Amino acid sequence: MIKYDPKSWVLHILSIHKSDTVRMLWKELLYMAILTSILTYIEITYLPNAKWTKDLMAVYSLVGFVLSLLLVFRTNTGYERWWEGRKKWGELVNNTRNLAIKINASSVSDETKSFFRRMIPNITYAVKEHLRNGVVLEELDLTTDERKLLDESSHIPNTLVNGMYNRLEREKKVGNISDVEMMIVDTNLKTFADIYGACERIKNTPIPYSYSLFLKKFIVLYVTTMPLAFITSFGYWSILVVVFVFYVLVSMEVLAEEIEDPFGRDDNDLPTDELCEKIKANCEEVFSTNFPEK
Amino acid sequence: MIKYDPKSWVLHILSIHKSDTVRMLWKELLYMAILTSILTYIEITYLPNAKWTKDLMAVYSLVGFVLSLLLVFRTNTGYERWWEGRKKWGELVNNTRNLAIKINASSVSDETKSFFRRMIPNITYAVKEHLRNGVVLEELDLTTDERKLLDESSHIPNTLVNGMYNRLEREKKVGNISDVEMMIVDTNLKTFADIYGACERIKNTPIPYSYSLFLKKFIVLYVTTMPLAFITSFGYWSILVVVFVFYVLVSMEVLAEEIEDPFGRDDNDLPTDELCEKIKANCEEVFSTNFPEK
Amino acid sequence: MIKYDPKSWVLHILSIHKSDTVRMLWKELLYMAILTSILTYIEITYLPNAKWTKDLMAVYSLVGFVLSLLLVFRTNTGYERWWEGRKKWGELVNNTRNLAIKINASSVSDETKSFFRRMIPNITYAVKEHLRNGVVLEELDLTTDERKLLDESSHIPNTLVNGMYNRLEREKKVGNISDVEMMIVDTNLKTFADIYGACERIKNTPIPYSYSLFLKKFIVLYVTTMPLAFITSFGYWSILVVVFVFYVLVSMEVLAEEIEDPFGRDDNDLPTDELCEKIKANCEEVFSTNFPEK
Amino acid sequence: MIKYDPKSWVLHILSIHKSDTVRMLWKELLYMAILTSILTYIEITYLPNAKWTKDLMAVYSLVGFVLSLLLVFRTNTGYERWWEGRKKWGELVNNTRNLAIKINASSVSDETKSFFRRMIPNITYAVKEHLRNGVVLEELDLTTDERKLLDESSHIPNTLVNGMYNRLEREKKVGNISDVEMMIVDTNLKTFADIYGACERIKNTPIPYSYSLFLKKFIVLYVTTMPLAFITSFGYWSILVVVFVFYVLVSMEVLAEEIEDPFGRDDNDLPTDELCEKIKANCEEVFSTNFPEK
Amino acid sequence: MIKYDPKSWVLHILSIHKSDTVRMLWKELLYMAILTSILTYIEITYLPNAKWTKDLMAVYSLVGFVLSLLLVFRTNTGYERWWEGRKKWGELVNNTRNLAIKINASSVSDETKSFFRRMIPNITYAVKEHLRNGVVLEELDLTTDERKLLDESSHIPNTLVNGMYNRLEREKKVGNISDVEMMIVDTNLKTFADIYGACERIKNTPIPYSYSLFLKKFIVLYVTTMPLAFITSFGYWSILVVVFVFYVLVSMEVLAEEIEDPFGRDDNDLPTDELCEKIKANCEEVFSTNFPEK
Repeated sequence: MIKYDPKSWVLHILSIHKSDTVRMLWKELLYMAILTSILTYIEITYLPNAKWTKDLMAVYSLVGFVLSLLLVFRTNTGYERWWEGRKKWGELVNNTRNLAIKINASSVSDETKSFFRRMIPNITYAVKEHLRNGVVLEELDLTTDERKLLDESSHIPNTLVNGMYNRLEREKKVGNISDVEMMIVDTNLKTFADIYGACERIKNTPIPYSYSLFLKKFIVLYVTTMPLAFITSFGYWSILVVVFVFYVLVSMEVLAEEIEDPFGRDDNDLPTDELCEKIKANCEEVFSTNFPEK
Repeated sequence: MIKYDPKSWVLHILSIHKSDTVRMLWKELLYMAILTSILTYIEITYLPNAKWTKDLMAVYSLVGFVLSLLLVFRTNTGYERWWEGRKKWGELVNNTRNLAIKINASSVSDETKSFFRRMIPNITYAVKEHLRNGVVLEELDLTTDERKLLDESSHIPNTLVNGMYNRLEREKKVGNISDVEMMIVDTNLKTFADIYGACERIKNTPIPYSYSLFLKKFIVLYVTTMPLAFITSFGYWSILVVVFVFYVLVSMEVLAEEIEDPFGRDDNDLPTDELCEKIKANCEEVFSTNFPEK
Repeated sequence: MIKYDPKSWVLHILSIHKSDTVRMLWKELLYMAILTSILTYIEITYLPNAKWTKDLMAVYSLVGFVLSLLLVFRTNTGYERWWEGRKKWGELVNNTRNLAIKINASSVSDETKSFFRRMIPNITYAVKEHLRNGVVLEELDLTTDERKLLDESSHIPNTLVNGMYNRLEREKKVGNISDVEMMIVDTNLKTFADIYGACERIKNTPIPYSYSLFLKKFIVLYVTTMPLAFITSFGYWSILVVVFVFYVLVSMEVLAEEIEDPFGRDDNDLPTDELCEKIKANCEEVFSTNFPEK
Repeated sequence: MIKYDPKSWVLHILSIHKSDTVRMLWKELLYMAILTSILTYIEITYLPNAKWTKDLMAVYSLVGFVLSLLLVFRTNTGYERWWEGRKKWGELVNNTRNLAIKINASSVSDETKSFFRRMIPNITYAVKEHLRNGVVLEELDLTTDERKLLDESSHIPNTLVNGMYNRLEREKKVGNISDVEMMIVDTNLKTFADIYGACERIKNTPIPYSYSLFLKKFIVLYVTTMPLAFITSFGYWSILVVVFVFYVLVSMEVLAEEIEDPFGRDDNDLPTDELCEKIKANCEEVFSTNFPEK
Repeated sequence: MIKYDPKSWVLHILSIHKSDTVRMLWKELLYMAILTSILTYIEITYLPNAKWTKDLMAVYSLVGFVLSLLLVFRTNTGYERWWEGRKKWGELVNNTRNLAIKINASSVSDETKSFFRRMIPNITYAVKEHLRNGVVLEELDLTTDERKLLDESSHIPNTLVNGMYNRLEREKKVGNISDVEMMIVDTNLKTFADIYGACERIKNTPIPYSYSLFLKKFIVLYVTTMPLAFITSFGYWSILVVVFVFYVLVSMEVLAEEIEDPFGRDDNDLPTDELCEKIKANCEEVFSTNFPEK
């Protein structure tokens, strides 16, 4: 994710950023310019007296209205996924903090405390890459046995939660924690599966295929036929107008697509790497702090 | 559900997919073309000097605006159901993972563990087909007695949850788990009914009948009378224009209808078959993993 | 609630259903036609050369835009109440299933089990009519004493929940269930009040009076003055145009009003009768099922 | 809150209700009429041949569109607060019912039962006036000591909740209720603070000042300059048109402002007085009902 | 946050407030005026007979529509963050009240009660400045040891929660509170991390960079080229029109940016300082109140 100061207008407008749609779409914009040039040439040469174009503008306004509403709907759903993904990662931060604090305050063995001190950051690093191309075990702090087990695991975050439950159950059997104390920790332990499950859902479920298809067909059909309505008025200036309208409409679709899956490494994706480091630092601090008794 | 790469524009636009509205609506589009041809012929022949058509366009803009907003409202509600259905299936994934982990970590008898190892995937397969045409008992891993019982059950997922509660209650009576441990598992057990209940709600409650009726009447009335506003300007080109507008409006209604019930086997429906397999695999892994003690 | 197949277009469009706004509004549409006829006659006779009407159309477009947005806002809020009501009834289904399963699995006396077997369906039937004109005690399965008590009760669903809590408290005193088991059941028992309380809220709180008033004044003012902008262009055809626009706008307001209170017996109301029967059947099945032990 | 039948159109349209925006805004409408008259006079006298007005209409359409969207956004946020306030009061109803039922079923001393019988209605009456001008202690059923304490309390609802917790803690020390029973009641006791806290939030946080300011400036700027676009077409009829547009736009802003704080005594405010009485009656009934044991 | 009476129109309109967008944007408005003057001069001098401008207006309407929808989307997301921030601070108020009441009613040592009496307000003051430039330890009521510890802490609110858990765990070991009582308090203790975590999320995650960039480019491109469509009609009056449209569009973007991070000290930011004082006062009152036993 790019950090930026939303108030610096001039810088924004002049910069051609990597995530700028102008940069992403320059080829398409060029194709569109060429297509319009050809259409304009044909019409000016062969249909010099066409009069119906102006009425066509009214139809394009009407249909353009539907298209705009659809694109805003698309923008909204894309943004909502992005924001829900962010919320889930926020919950991950909160959850790890609470879990670390609770384990640290509890009467479990020191061995178990240091186990959680490793595992709480481990699970966040695992979730982060699980939502990309697969967990990078090198990022995790593991014993040789754990490493061996996870190498064969098909769902590493789930296996880690499994390990945490097992560990606490053993502490319970030994009598270090009671059933009720287990229950207090359970509210946080079970949240992990809810969080990475929700992120998997966001990642694996784009907008229904038919909508994606319909919107793309609609935009292309709309923009490629639009010159018909302009040419008699604008002549070769139509090219600029069409390219501008195309830029606006396609940008919205492209931006919505880009933020729909927010867990990757694009400019607009969530700062999950950074959040993992923050969680690790918080977790370390919690386990190493002794709050004064008086 | 179709998996697709949302970034491949060209492929999308050229393909005439099964779930493409062009393919679904080609008959209606043809009827519309014929109807407009007839209307155009009549008007050009008998009302060659009509002047009021242009002002009519203003009225059509106004009314078209209301119609667009209604269609976007329709799209939104359809999409929200689809997405809520997806969320519920996501919760099913999370819930089964947590339940499997908790049962696996607990002190219940091995027999009960293997019971849950069968039942957790069973309930997801049952829910999947319960939301279609009825549970396919062959997909479930059952003993003969269980099979007999379920054959007579009118609500199989509910009977399965009933069985799970009964099983744990027996473990509690034997003393394998305490009341509090039962409570920790209860948060997951009761979630099953919440999930399949919500899915039943989505499946059985389409948008209110009056809205569906009103929207359909509105679209047909709008599109069939629209040629009146175009014919003097466009002549026989009206046919193309009307068919295009009709295509756009009806597509939105048809797509909203298609995603409103997301549990079937349409292209846009949720990948519930795949989710069931994923749940089964996760569940197997949880019950067969021994996290290293050190 | 009417069950319908959303895909059968032709049937929908031709049928004049009871809940069809055309049928509900035919008188108003007729009045509007007569009013416009009179206005048109006056203008054509006395103001044959008015030129300002076309510019008026621009004003009507602008104001019509605000009106459309308001009507969609109205549609949205009406729909949201309807859908929230459906959700609450869905929760009622889920809640009764879970409660029945938990009571059935628990160690309470058989007498108490059969008490809940009667009371769980009872409360849903009570809620259903409580949201209409008052509970129909004949629909409930009651002993003579219970019947006598409820006859004097001012809030029957609440009294039933009261009875359920009392019954379980007695089981707890006898030692059949523990405090923690009571707590597990409490999560479902307390949900009843949340559900019928939410339904009462939806039923008793229509959209703020000022909005209802403002929208109605706005629509009438808009439509009755609209002919002024059309008459010079359309002559007596204005009648058709005005009636069409009026039909569209008033339909939206009328439909929103109809679905705002979804607990009655209108065509668009929720199928609460059917849900009660479903709950009763589920409840019976839960209490009569013995899941095989092996 | 005014109770009304949303289906009686004629009555609504003819009545000039207290909460009618026409009545609230008649002065502003008059000012606007006078201002437009002056502007029209000036233009007709000194600029009789202005031709640019019609193009100005296009600009006004465009800007009017932004304004409409903003006003609907404003309407939405106002309505959402109103509805959230209603939901919170609905939760208050549910919560008091459940709390009364739980206390009544529990083993606390009769003295404590009668304490809650007084306190549950007390807190709702306290919250009601706390959200207006301050609690009216006369509405509460208090002992002399309680009265004395509350007279000096700066946050009466909070002090009442404090008293309820104290009372139950004493019952727990005596052994009348267990820790777990306390926990069952706690879910309802802690909800009071959540409810009146949320109501305080709604009451004390209007829409950000800059938006309120911007919207007002925008409306006034828009409407006062609008006559420039109409005068050449409509002459003195502009006055009517401008007043109508002004009426529509300002009504939306004024209505949104009125429902934003829904706890007062305006026509559109929530029926909190009535809800308090309902809660009191429900509470009385719960504590005086003996559900038959058989 | 500025407190204001939303009903005083005249005052609002005339005042040029610090948070007024006119004041914030006067430089940009001036630049725009100069730019339009130059463009107008060029066009009037060199292109006196351009005819295509009017058709261009239709294109600008269409594109302006998309832009308006995007700006309202932007307004909505900005407002939702602001309102979510307010909700979280409302929860902080509720949570501190409940925690104070519970600790006060419990059997913990007096020392621990006075510890929480200091810590509950401390954490709110800490969160307040943590969301600005870093906690101001002087605002907190700390012992020397605590002060020393917090000086070295990288996340002070988290360290405070850690301290609270530790303190209660010690009380539990001594036997002053039971496991279940700990659980009752835990529901409030864990909420702190959820609240400041959510606020950190809002503060650190502006709208995706690409959207911010796209909107700014779109507005500037739109407004700078708009004069082309006006000049032939309005001549030098275009300057006023362009500046007005620019003012409206940029104001919306600027306002959305301003409320997106609501925890600072801007006019539109939340009254967190005031809320802290309120929490402190409530907390003091709770700990010093003895509710009469009879």
